[in-house]
Amino acid sequence: MKSYIIGAATTKFGELWGASPRGLANDAVSRALSDASLEKKDVEALFVGNMLSGMLGGQEHLGAFFADELGLTVPACKIEGACASGGLATHAAIQSVRSGMYKTVVVLGIEKMTDHKPEDVATALMGAGSEEERSSGATFPGLYAMLAKAHMDRYKTTEEQMAAVAVKNHFHAMKNPNAQFHSLITVDSVLRSSQIADPLKLLDCSPISDGAAALVISSRNTPRGVSIAASVVATDTLGLAKRKSLTSLSATVRAAEQAYAQAGIAAADVDVCEVHDCFTIAEILAMEDLGFFTRGKAAAAIASGETTLGTARRIVVNPSGGLKGCGHPVGATGVKQLVELVEQLRGEAKDRQVPHARIGLSQNVGGSGATSVIHIVKRGMEEDV
Amino acid sequence: MKSYIIGAATTKFGELWGASPRGLANDAVSRALSDASLEKKDVEALFVGNMLSGMLGGQEHLGAFFADELGLTVPACKIEGACASGGLATHAAIQSVRSGMYKTVVVLGIEKMTDHKPEDVATALMGAGSEEERSSGATFPGLYAMLAKAHMDRYKTTEEQMAAVAVKNHFHAMKNPNAQFHSLITVDSVLRSSQIADPLKLLDCSPISDGAAALVISSRNTPRGVSIAASVVATDTLGLAKRKSLTSLSATVRAAEQAYAQAGIAAADVDVCEVHDCFTIAEILAMEDLGFFTRGKAAAAIASGETTLGTARRIVVNPSGGLKGCGHPVGATGVKQLVELVEQLRGEAKDRQVPHARIGLSQNVGGSGATSVIHIVKRGMEEDV
Repeated sequence: MKSYIIGAATTKFGELWGASPRGLANDAVSRALSDASLEKKDVEALFVGNMLSGMLGGQEHLGAFFADELGLTVPACKIEGACASGGLATHAAIQSVRSGMYKTVVVLGIEKMTDHKPEDVATALMGAGSEEERSSGATFPGLYAMLAKAHMDRYKTTEEQMAAVAVKNHFHAMKNPNAQFHSLITVDSVLRSSQIADPLKLLDCSPISDGAAALVISSRNTPRGVSIAASVVATDTLGLAKRKSLTSLSATVRAAEQAYAQAGIAAADVDVCEVHDCFTIAEILAMEDLGFFTRGKAAAAIASGETTLGTARRIVVNPSGGLKGCGHPVGATGVKQLVELVEQLRGEAKDRQVPHARIGLSQNVGGSGATSVIHIVKRGMEEDV
Repeated sequence: MKSYIIGAATTKFGELWGASPRGLANDAVSRALSDASLEKKDVEALFVGNMLSGMLGGQEHLGAFFADELGLTVPACKIEGACASGGLATHAAIQSVRSGMYKTVVVLGIEKMTDHKPEDVATALMGAGSEEERSSGATFPGLYAMLAKAHMDRYKTTEEQMAAVAVKNHFHAMKNPNAQFHSLITVDSVLRSSQIADPLKLLDCSPISDGAAALVISSRNTPRGVSIAASVVATDTLGLAKRKSLTSLSATVRAAEQAYAQAGIAAADVDVCEVHDCFTIAEILAMEDLGFFTRGKAAAAIASGETTLGTARRIVVNPSGGLKGCGHPVGATGVKQLVELVEQLRGEAKDRQVPHARIGLSQNVGGSGATSVIHIVKRGMEEDV
């Protein structure tokens, strides 16, 4: 059975101190349903992607919590997979529709992070790491710094090239009204920002954010629907220590291979993608792991504008602004990526519209790459039921 | 597409201070795979049911964590729905198989609770309650005490009758080598145990436990397989305050109606069931909500032995010992219930075998009834592919 995204919406991402989780959830879900021309009574199940409600908010039983808050008396559960929770919740929702058990379901990705002390948030986020990493005091900037150092060593990738990822994503975020940051930055300002974990500076890192995003997924397409051509999850060792390579995330490589096969396309067919740039090096790795650039060549290509709106030749990457520019409420990110792709494929992305976008890909990563979730979506016409 | 449970195993439940989460997971999954005559390479995805790894252990990204620990490089996620996490993980796993995305998957339910201070565990468990309940200092014994008081008031249910649930379940647990408790108790000893939340005494309450259970679910049946005839989830308001009735869990009533319809059976057709007796009153509610007894009549029926091994006329309830006698590692419970039913339907339950068991039902509840998950399983022969 096929499945389609027939409604999509995201709240503004940012430091939303005046917003509650229930308010964010209601906002995203109501607008996604309205986008699908559906009402709450049409929803048959709810999948919540979230990482930190327990550790930061003391709330588990989150599926029933949001079903109650949203006035949906439907089957509900929370799916957790660190920063890939949103992608995993989408994957589970797609399976539920394809199984025939439900016709129309809602995916809600949500995280409320800025109500807590940054050190508590950092500790909670390390819940995504291995026990060895956690007990040794490692942080995620530190882990990605190791990946950056390995890539610099092997491919001569430079700090300037990494900075260019952040510059591009802030440039894109300027065009996204829902983005956390509306400020242009330069390679120089990235390089001069505070050192976080050498070689990563503050502006190489995605922010702590609040936000929610929602999708309506159905077995019945609509004129504005987008068809889900691939939904693939792959995993790898939780910690970096046991990985064979630090210059590639093998979970992304494997998920991409399967996703291209499922969708019957090649990497070169993708017009627009949203990837998991939790740190600038992560977008460079993604470009190579997804097969968009030869190994060692992505950083220079990004720096030369090959993936930037307006100057891209083949593919635009993170038109939403990515995690760096749009923000990274962890459970919401994987869902927001697909909201962006839906708007792009429908031609509704306004200032940030990628011309002639027909095929979109999202890559949502958990931790330092132990989970990778890839979705490929296509304009619905050729897949109409 | 149909789905079958072709392998099932549980660890011992109890205060397992010498066991680690990875050890418990390995034990349950290895034995479930061996039971299915499969190897790790045959597993295509892993669904982990767990509630408290974040709040108690600081570990999220639990799907990838266990995939790594188990040596399974497969898609993995954690499903959280408070004490119904195991049932919800099973529901998601069944959908994944029925969707055709995976042929054979593993469900792992696991919780490690006794390494933490009891007050921390109690606080963490309140994560399943509503914000009003949490902020008012309510506890789960207190919430179920309100349900008990309401039932006593309406149906003249007595403390002796509630005690009889615990007595029966300890009697059954005596026959289960994996149960936490191997001690016969009496109605008198329940009544004389410490007051916890009037009218509930210590021996009305299920314990804090460690344990893991695993299922192998496949689209292909085997000679020892059990067919999944229904898998249904329903939700209700998170807190008790907004419920229309306190003498019934409406999520269970609605899930049961759908489950009987899915399976094409009536309540009277069920031979053996495992229900969520987190407190003795909960089993009485379950008997009535599932349609096994007329409202107000279940307590007396249980007390007279109508659901006890050896004296039951129609149905045996909680032959494993239930949550009260076998233990309640929350994420593992919903999975263990199905392990017990598989053994019963295969005729492999030894001393606690329910004669002629052909149809089994499990009911797994989250919180005070905001989530209810019901599975119905049948002996595989008539459903063979």
